[in-house]
Amino acid sequence: MSPVSIADISVDRRGVAAVMAEMGRRARAAAERLAAAPTKQKDAALLAAAMVIRANVDDILEANAKDVAAAKEKGLGAALLDRLLLDEKRIEAMAKGLEEIAALPDPVGSKITEWDRPNGLHIERIRVPLGVIGIIYESRPNVTADAGALCLKSGNAAILRGGSEASHSNRIIHASLIEGILAANLPEDAIQLVPTTDRAAVGEMLTGLDGHLDVIVPRGGKSLVARVQTEARVPVFAHLEGLCHVYVDKDADLDMARSIVMNAKLRRTGVCGSAETLLVDEACAATHLAPLVKDLLDAGCEVRGDEATRAVDARVTAASEADWNTEYLDAIISVRVVKGVEEAMRHIARYGSHHTEAIITANQKTADRFLATVDSAIVLHNASTQFADGGEFGMGAEIGIATGKFHARGPVGVEQLTSFKYVVRGAGQIRP
Amino acid sequence: MSPVSIADISVDRRGVAAVMAEMGRRARAAAERLAAAPTKQKDAALLAAAMVIRANVDDILEANAKDVAAAKEKGLGAALLDRLLLDEKRIEAMAKGLEEIAALPDPVGSKITEWDRPNGLHIERIRVPLGVIGIIYESRPNVTADAGALCLKSGNAAILRGGSEASHSNRIIHASLIEGILAANLPEDAIQLVPTTDRAAVGEMLTGLDGHLDVIVPRGGKSLVARVQTEARVPVFAHLEGLCHVYVDKDADLDMARSIVMNAKLRRTGVCGSAETLLVDEACAATHLAPLVKDLLDAGCEVRGDEATRAVDARVTAASEADWNTEYLDAIISVRVVKGVEEAMRHIARYGSHHTEAIITANQKTADRFLATVDSAIVLHNASTQFADGGEFGMGAEIGIATGKFHARGPVGVEQLTSFKYVVRGAGQIRP
Repeated sequence: MSPVSIADISVDRRGVAAVMAEMGRRARAAAERLAAAPTKQKDAALLAAAMVIRANVDDILEANAKDVAAAKEKGLGAALLDRLLLDEKRIEAMAKGLEEIAALPDPVGSKITEWDRPNGLHIERIRVPLGVIGIIYESRPNVTADAGALCLKSGNAAILRGGSEASHSNRIIHASLIEGILAANLPEDAIQLVPTTDRAAVGEMLTGLDGHLDVIVPRGGKSLVARVQTEARVPVFAHLEGLCHVYVDKDADLDMARSIVMNAKLRRTGVCGSAETLLVDEACAATHLAPLVKDLLDAGCEVRGDEATRAVDARVTAASEADWNTEYLDAIISVRVVKGVEEAMRHIARYGSHHTEAIITANQKTADRFLATVDSAIVLHNASTQFADGGEFGMGAEIGIATGKFHARGPVGVEQLTSFKYVVRGAGQIRP
Repeated sequence: MSPVSIADISVDRRGVAAVMAEMGRRARAAAERLAAAPTKQKDAALLAAAMVIRANVDDILEANAKDVAAAKEKGLGAALLDRLLLDEKRIEAMAKGLEEIAALPDPVGSKITEWDRPNGLHIERIRVPLGVIGIIYESRPNVTADAGALCLKSGNAAILRGGSEASHSNRIIHASLIEGILAANLPEDAIQLVPTTDRAAVGEMLTGLDGHLDVIVPRGGKSLVARVQTEARVPVFAHLEGLCHVYVDKDADLDMARSIVMNAKLRRTGVCGSAETLLVDEACAATHLAPLVKDLLDAGCEVRGDEATRAVDARVTAASEADWNTEYLDAIISVRVVKGVEEAMRHIARYGSHHTEAIITANQKTADRFLATVDSAIVLHNASTQFADGGEFGMGAEIGIATGKFHARGPVGVEQLTSFKYVVRGAGQIRP
C-alpha cells in the first residue's frame, strides 16, 4: 500500500488523465489483494465501516447540509434535492445496508458446477471477481456506500465517481468506508473516490484507464446512462430505461388485475420497474377495461389511451405514438386494447426496453407462451412489475438492473459482479 | 422469409454497407424465429445438413480445388494451404461434427436455477439465445459448418464472414447448411454468409450492424483477433494468444512431470493450449531440470533458457526478455528456474495471457494455492495444458476459447452462446 493517498495529491498539479491513470493502477493492485481476501476479512471491513458511519452521523449531516445548501443556491429541483438529502434515518439505512451486504454469502471461490471426465480429470467452475469496477453516479450519496460495499464483498476494487452536487457527502462517506477497510487490514485503494468533479474524469473512465477498469456501472438519469452506453470502451451493466408493460389477458381475474395494475403503476412511479403501459385484451375489454382505468384515474393517475380506452371514461386523453415510447416515471400511464397475447407481445417487442413485463391471466398456456417469448430480463406471471429489484429477488442489495444480454441480466447483485475460472484436477493425464 | 436470398443481390450494385445492414435485419428476424424453434427442428436441420454435405462431397472437393489452386498461384505458405485443404476425411469430419452438435443437449429454455420467495413468488432463471452472432474467420472452411451449426443449436442467427482464399469452399458448405435448414422449415437467414470478400464488410460487422449484431467471434491469427478486439463496438469472445505455462514444483513426481511437459509442449505445437514456457522450482532443479530439458531437446524441441537451464545442457540457447512474452506455436520452449510457487505465479501474472496454466506437484496445499491465485480461464493440477478444449471438457464442440472475464470464459460451447432471463410466477402478488 502506498503511504500517500491519491486524494492527497492535487489534481490541478497533475492533470486529470494522470490522476485517473494512477487510480487505475492502484485499483488493479488492490484488486489482486481483494481477490484473495478471506470472507471474514471483507465482512469485518464492512461491519467496521457501518460502525464508523454511525459514529460519524453528525459530520455526515454537516457535510450533507453544505451540499444541500449549494444545490438550493443553484436552484436545483425538488426531486434532485430529495435524492441528495440525508437524514438520520437514511444514514442508519446506509449503515444497515453495509451490514446486510456483510451477511450475504461470499460468491468468490464458490463452486458453480463440477463434473468428471472419462479420463479421470475433475473439472470445477469456480467464481472469481471481475477485477476493477467503475461506478458513475449522480446525486444520491448512499450509492457511495452501497456500490463500494457490493464491490468489496465480491472481491472487486471500486472506482467511484459521484456527482459534484454530492461531493461533501460522498467524501465523508468514502472516508468512513476506508476507515473500516483499514481496520480490517485491507488495502485502502479497494474503494477509491475520484477526487475531482472535472467531467474529463468520466471520459477517462469510459476509455478504460489503460485496461485497469473492467466494467462500468452508471447510476443516474437517462442522459448519463446513454452517454456511458454509447462511449464506453469497456462492458457496461445498465438499463437505459424501464418501459415496463402489464398485459391483462381475457382469462385474467379482474380483482387480481386491478390490484396488480394499481401496484405496478402507482406504488412508486419513479422506479425503473414501474409500469408505463397497460395492454388489455379486447376479449375482456367490455368487463375489465373500465374498472382498471377508473381505479387509476380515481387514484390521480393520468391515463392516455387509444380510442377504445377513451370510450370508457371521459377523463382519458388521447395517446400519441410517442406515448408508447415514453417512460413517464410519473403518475401517467398509456393504455391500449390489443387482440390477445400475440398482439400484446408484438407491442412489447416494438416499444419495450427489455426490462420487465407482466401478464395477468388464469390460463397457464397463455402465460407460458408470454413468459417464453417476451425478450426481457424479467417476465412475470400474475405479479407486479415493481418486484424488479435485487432485494425482492432475495439477492440482497443490487448495484443496478441490466437489460443487456451479456454476463449480467436483471438485478446485478454480488454474484453478478463475479466471473469464473475452470479448475482442473488431474493425476498426470496427458492428451492423446 | 424473403423470396430473394441476399446472396442473389449484386454487392457492387448496392454497396457493402447497404448489404451488411440488410443482412443484419434479416438475421434479427431469423433470430426471433430461432429463439422459439423446438430442439427437434434445429436438430433435424443439422442432421439434414450433414447428409447434404456427404451428398455434395464431389462438388465440395471441386470448389476447394479452385481455392487451393488460386492460393498456390498467389504463393501462399504451406501452413495456410494445409488449413485451406479439404479431403474426403475432412469433409466426413465436418458432417460428423454437425451430427455431434445435433446430439448435444439444447441449452435454450433450460432452467439454470430456481427458488421461492417468502411471498410465494417462484423465480426461475431460464437460458435464452444471445441473438445474432458474427463469426469472422480466415482460411479454414470447416469453420463455416462448425460455427454455423453451434449458433443454430443455441438458437442464434449467424453471420459468417470467411476468408477470401476459401470463398468457393465456404459458398458450397454454406449452401449445404441452408439446404438442411430449409428441409427442417427453419428460416434460410438463420446462417448467412457475407457475399463479398471486400474488407469493408468486416468494418461494418465491427460497428455492430445498427444493433443487429450481438457478439463477434474472431477465428484466426493474432492480427485478426487484435483488430477485432480493438475495433469492435460489440462484445467479443476470443483469446489473443495462449501463452501457457507449466510449473514443475519441488514436490512434483519426476515421471509425471516429464510426461506432462512433453505432451503440453509437443503433442501439437500450433494449438492455443500448447505450453510455451516451463517454470521449474529451484528446489528440485538439481534432479528435475536436466531430464525435462533433455526430453524436449531429444524430441527436436528448441529450448531457450535462463542461466541455470543453459548449465544443464549445451544445446540450450539463451532466453531473452522477449522469449517470456512469445507464443511460439512451434517446437520451441522457454525455460526458467524460479523460487517456488510464489515466483512462478509472479512470472505468470507478468507474462501470461490468462489462458491456461498447469502446476505439477504432489503437494495439495501448493496446488490449491496455485489454482486459487492464478488468474487464467483454465488452471490445471497434474494434467497437460493441451486439455484446454471444449471437446476435452465434455462440452461438445466449441466456437473458440475466451480469455475475457465477461459472460464466457474458457471454451465457448453452445451453453456459452446463451444468456438467460428471469421468469417469475405469482398468484397475484403486489409489492408492499
